[in-house]
Amino acid sequence: MSKYKLTISYDGTNYCGWQIQPNSTTIQELIQNTMKVLLKHDITLIGSGRTDTGVHALEQTAHFLSEVDINSNMFLKSMNGMLPADIRIRSIEKVDNTFHAQYSATSKIYHYHICLDRHQNPFNRLYSYHVRHKFDEEAFRNAAKLFLGTHDFTAFANEPHKGSASKDPVRTITRLDIIPEEGGLRLEFEGDGFLYKMVRNIVGTLLEISCGKKKVEEIPDMFESKDRKRSGKAAAAHGLFLVKVHYKN
Amino acid sequence: MSKYKLTISYDGTNYCGWQIQPNSTTIQELIQNTMKVLLKHDITLIGSGRTDTGVHALEQTAHFLSEVDINSNMFLKSMNGMLPADIRIRSIEKVDNTFHAQYSATSKIYHYHICLDRHQNPFNRLYSYHVRHKFDEEAFRNAAKLFLGTHDFTAFANEPHKGSASKDPVRTITRLDIIPEEGGLRLEFEGDGFLYKMVRNIVGTLLEISCGKKKVEEIPDMFESKDRKRSGKAAAAHGLFLVKVHYKN
Repeated sequence: MSKYKLTISYDGTNYCGWQIQPNSTTIQELIQNTMKVLLKHDITLIGSGRTDTGVHALEQTAHFLSEVDINSNMFLKSMNGMLPADIRIRSIEKVDNTFHAQYSATSKIYHYHICLDRHQNPFNRLYSYHVRHKFDEEAFRNAAKLFLGTHDFTAFANEPHKGSASKDPVRTITRLDIIPEEGGLRLEFEGDGFLYKMVRNIVGTLLEISCGKKKVEEIPDMFESKDRKRSGKAAAAHGLFLVKVHYKN
Repeated sequence: MSKYKLTISYDGTNYCGWQIQPNSTTIQELIQNTMKVLLKHDITLIGSGRTDTGVHALEQTAHFLSEVDINSNMFLKSMNGMLPADIRIRSIEKVDNTFHAQYSATSKIYHYHICLDRHQNPFNRLYSYHVRHKFDEEAFRNAAKLFLGTHDFTAFANEPHKGSASKDPVRTITRLDIIPEEGGLRLEFEGDGFLYKMVRNIVGTLLEISCGKKKVEEIPDMFESKDRKRSGKAAAAHGLFLVKVHYKN
C-alpha cells in the first residue's frame, strides 16, 4: 500500500465545488471516480480542503492510498485523457505514509481578483469579480492591513467552522498583498490555514469598506464580536483561486 | 443620420461566429438586436469581417448608421448591461460618413495561441490550441517565414473567397512573429487583409510541418498549386484571436 500526492488545477465554473455531495457534480468525485476506473480498486481521495462552487484552483493538493505501483507518466496521461479539460492533474508523487493533504499543510496561498474596469474584459468574467460601485482604494488598503497577523476569525467564518469546540478559530495571515494587475487588483493571502469562507468574507468586508457601506474603524469591533453578521457579505466565488498548499519538506 | 464605429471584445466560445445566419446565435445578431431595443430603430451593423465559430476578438470593429445622437457613456452602460458578459462593447465613436468597418481597414492583427505543455492549464483550454504531437520548433519557424510578404493565398483560403473573380486572392503579410509565452507560443499575424480561414489554414499547415506530416520545402508548391487540398487542415478555431483592426487616420 503506497500513499500518493496529487497536484490538481481546475476551473471551478462548472462544478459544485471540490467536496463530494449528493446530486451535484464535484471535482473530488470526478477525480475519485476516474481513478477507480483507471486503478481498478476503490479510492478515497482526501483534499487539502474544500473549495466552494465556482472557486478555482491553480494547485489544489490531495492524497490517496493505492495497492498499485503507479507509473506517473502513464497515470497523468490516462487521467487527463479521461477527465474533462477543465480539470488537470498536474503531478503525482509517492509520499511518506505520514503525509496528509489537509493536516500536513503548513500554509496556503489564495488569490482574489478584482476588476475595476468600467466594462470588464470578457475573458476575465469567470475569473475576476467586477466591482461596479465606487472604490476607495486607500480605505480598502488600510482595512486590509488589519487582517494581517494572528486573530480569532470567527466573525469572518461561515457555519461549518463555528461553534464547534474541536475547531480552533484562531488563524494567522502572514501576508496580504494587494497587487495591481491589468484591469484591477489581485489580493494575495498567505496563512497557516483559513476557516470556511474566510477569504471571501474578508474580501467582501473590504469591498463594503471600499464603497463606504462599512468603515475601517469597525473592523476591530467585528473581530471582537465574533459575530458573522457584523462582517461583510462574502465576495463572489469566481474571483477566488486556491494557488498553492505548502508542506514542510 | 450619423455614422458610429464600435470596438467590441468577445469570447467566441458560445457563439456561431460573428456573422448573422439562420438558426444560430451569432455575435453580430445579438449586438444588432440589442441596439434596436436601445435605439428604438432598425440597425444594420457592418463588421470589419467575420470571425468563425469559437474564434475570439479583443478588438473587433463595426459601424452602423443612426438618427439618434448617441451619448457614448450611456450607450456603453446600457449595451453592456443588456448584452451577455462574454460580449463587451469597449467604445463607440462618431466617424466620418466615408468610414466603412470593412473597406476602410488598412491592416489587421490576429494572434494564434499554441499550448505545448504536456497537460494544458485548464484556464487556457478555450483560448489556446493544445499540441499533443511532436513539435519541431525549428521547422515550424522556418516554414512560417515563407508566408511573409505578398502572395496569392488561394491555396490557404476556404470557399467564399475562392473562384470568385471579384475577390483578389493576393494579400500581404507584413509581420509574422512567433513569441514564446507561458505554456507555449503565440503567432502574431499582421497584414493588409486575410482571406476566409487563411490564418487558421496557415497555422494548420505549420502544425503539420512541425510534426513531420508535411515538409517546409512543399510550401512553394502549395502556393503555386492554388489548391486548398495541398495545404494543411485548418487549425482549431479556439486558438485564434482577432486582436486589432487598423484604419488610416
